[in-house]
Amino acid sequence: MSGLSGLDWIAADWGTTNLRVWALDAAGRVLARATGGRGMGKLTRADYEPALLDMVGGWLGADRVPVLICGMAGSRQGWAEAPYAAVPCAPLAAGRTVRPAVADGRLDVHLLPGLQQDSPADVMRGEETQIAGLLAGRPGFDGVLCLPGTHSKWVRISAGEVVSFQTAMTGELFALLSGQSVLRHGMAGEGWDEAAFAEGLGQAISRPERLAARLFAIRAEGLLHGLPPEAARSRLSGLLIGAELAGARPYWLGQEVAIVGAEGIGGAYRRALAGQGVEAVLADGEAMVLAGLGAARALMRGH
Amino acid sequence: MSGLSGLDWIAADWGTTNLRVWALDAAGRVLARATGGRGMGKLTRADYEPALLDMVGGWLGADRVPVLICGMAGSRQGWAEAPYAAVPCAPLAAGRTVRPAVADGRLDVHLLPGLQQDSPADVMRGEETQIAGLLAGRPGFDGVLCLPGTHSKWVRISAGEVVSFQTAMTGELFALLSGQSVLRHGMAGEGWDEAAFAEGLGQAISRPERLAARLFAIRAEGLLHGLPPEAARSRLSGLLIGAELAGARPYWLGQEVAIVGAEGIGGAYRRALAGQGVEAVLADGEAMVLAGLGAARALMRGH
Repeated sequence: MSGLSGLDWIAADWGTTNLRVWALDAAGRVLARATGGRGMGKLTRADYEPALLDMVGGWLGADRVPVLICGMAGSRQGWAEAPYAAVPCAPLAAGRTVRPAVADGRLDVHLLPGLQQDSPADVMRGEETQIAGLLAGRPGFDGVLCLPGTHSKWVRISAGEVVSFQTAMTGELFALLSGQSVLRHGMAGEGWDEAAFAEGLGQAISRPERLAARLFAIRAEGLLHGLPPEAARSRLSGLLIGAELAGARPYWLGQEVAIVGAEGIGGAYRRALAGQGVEAVLADGEAMVLAGLGAARALMRGH
Repeated sequence: MSGLSGLDWIAADWGTTNLRVWALDAAGRVLARATGGRGMGKLTRADYEPALLDMVGGWLGADRVPVLICGMAGSRQGWAEAPYAAVPCAPLAAGRTVRPAVADGRLDVHLLPGLQQDSPADVMRGEETQIAGLLAGRPGFDGVLCLPGTHSKWVRISAGEVVSFQTAMTGELFALLSGQSVLRHGMAGEGWDEAAFAEGLGQAISRPERLAARLFAIRAEGLLHGLPPEAARSRLSGLLIGAELAGARPYWLGQEVAIVGAEGIGGAYRRALAGQGVEAVLADGEAMVLAGLGAARALMRGH
């Protein structure tokens, strides 16, 4: 068992749907990476160690290697529960990780906790690591982060701490409405119509209370006026992101905003905010999660 | 083949999910009734006649019997398309029904058309018959009808005509969110908590732009504060109905309102409107569809 030369530790982002892993050397350089579909949603507690070994077993030599994991693997239904830390607090802190029992002595597994807010009640798991990644590169950041996704997060940051946050189910609503509601008729699976996106966005930001009626209008316009499937999909996206922005207005209005996400969805949020006079910067979501896991590794070393 | 004694015609409400049929005599009295699960969503064009005969075959004698059908059976994906009539117009009009070809000579099938509104684009199929049923009993009604359901309708009525209408996807959103989203964890399949319903309702009516954030808070309160499953379900219902009411405010504010629906859901809407100072009356949805089909039968006779 020679393993991967120079391997110092392993980083993992273990979400509901996917597992992404990286092999890193002592200087934090990426030696190898892999992505698989064995997310928390498909696993029982006993499946986690074998699933991890399937992905990283080839990297291991004889030595014990730290494996830092963020995301849903640390939830109550995951590998082991890493209890939430309560805001206001730093997104990561030394000594708060949880170590599940493992059979393979080469694995030294640490699950990172998520964050909770008591009132209004809210939770995050995984995003706190992306936040830590952004703060690692910009320690003086004072403003608001937007992390678009299945459950989009809006996060107030000050003095290196998460002050408060708010979740919108935008991505999940989009998936349900475009894939399983009456709107799926006449809705494209891909393709983009920027004008239709902007139209839906503007409608929802200016009149968020009309969202439920605007949604059905997509179907009616398809039946009556032949709304093209790409326009229907883009309009739906615009309506839902617009409704999210309307509800998050106290977060972004007059603030410095950074968006953490992939180019496609992150760019859509950036254009949407620009239309409201907010010039947000965009940070890559995958780079931020890796930087955040690196920050957690540095904290662990210092501890 | 003696059939049902006194049978004059058959009424049918053929929706996406269910088929309901009634046998009536010449005076409009119900001789028999039946309900089955063969809705439009499960049928191809060739299935309609056999599905109908399965339900009403035992009622037929040797004579040809009129069968009046409202609902999705008249849609483009149904038995035959009964093109929409454009508002403003009466909910039913003589000579607008469509007769699909049938193999069994005892069936004289008439599909009732739905209504369309060009701008804002909107459609209904089936509700127009309930509206006609209400107007048959209250020909001078001048005000607004609310028809809660999978796709709730708000309808302005004046001088016996449908003037305008608006659809909200409230029932479908409730089914998707309670059954298939992350909210399904910690959500009861039944049970009711009126205080939680009222709380969600109040939140959504007063701050409809915060809907997306309020939805996720149901999940977070379950995780952090042990929100009971019945309260979660009732809060979700309150939030979605509240959002619908907020979007339909121009319809009900200062108007005479009648709700057409079953006691459970109709009562929830009535209490919600009462909280806004609107005392709505409640008309039973099944009685109204039968009365509307009776009105269509009377029109056909007069024609």
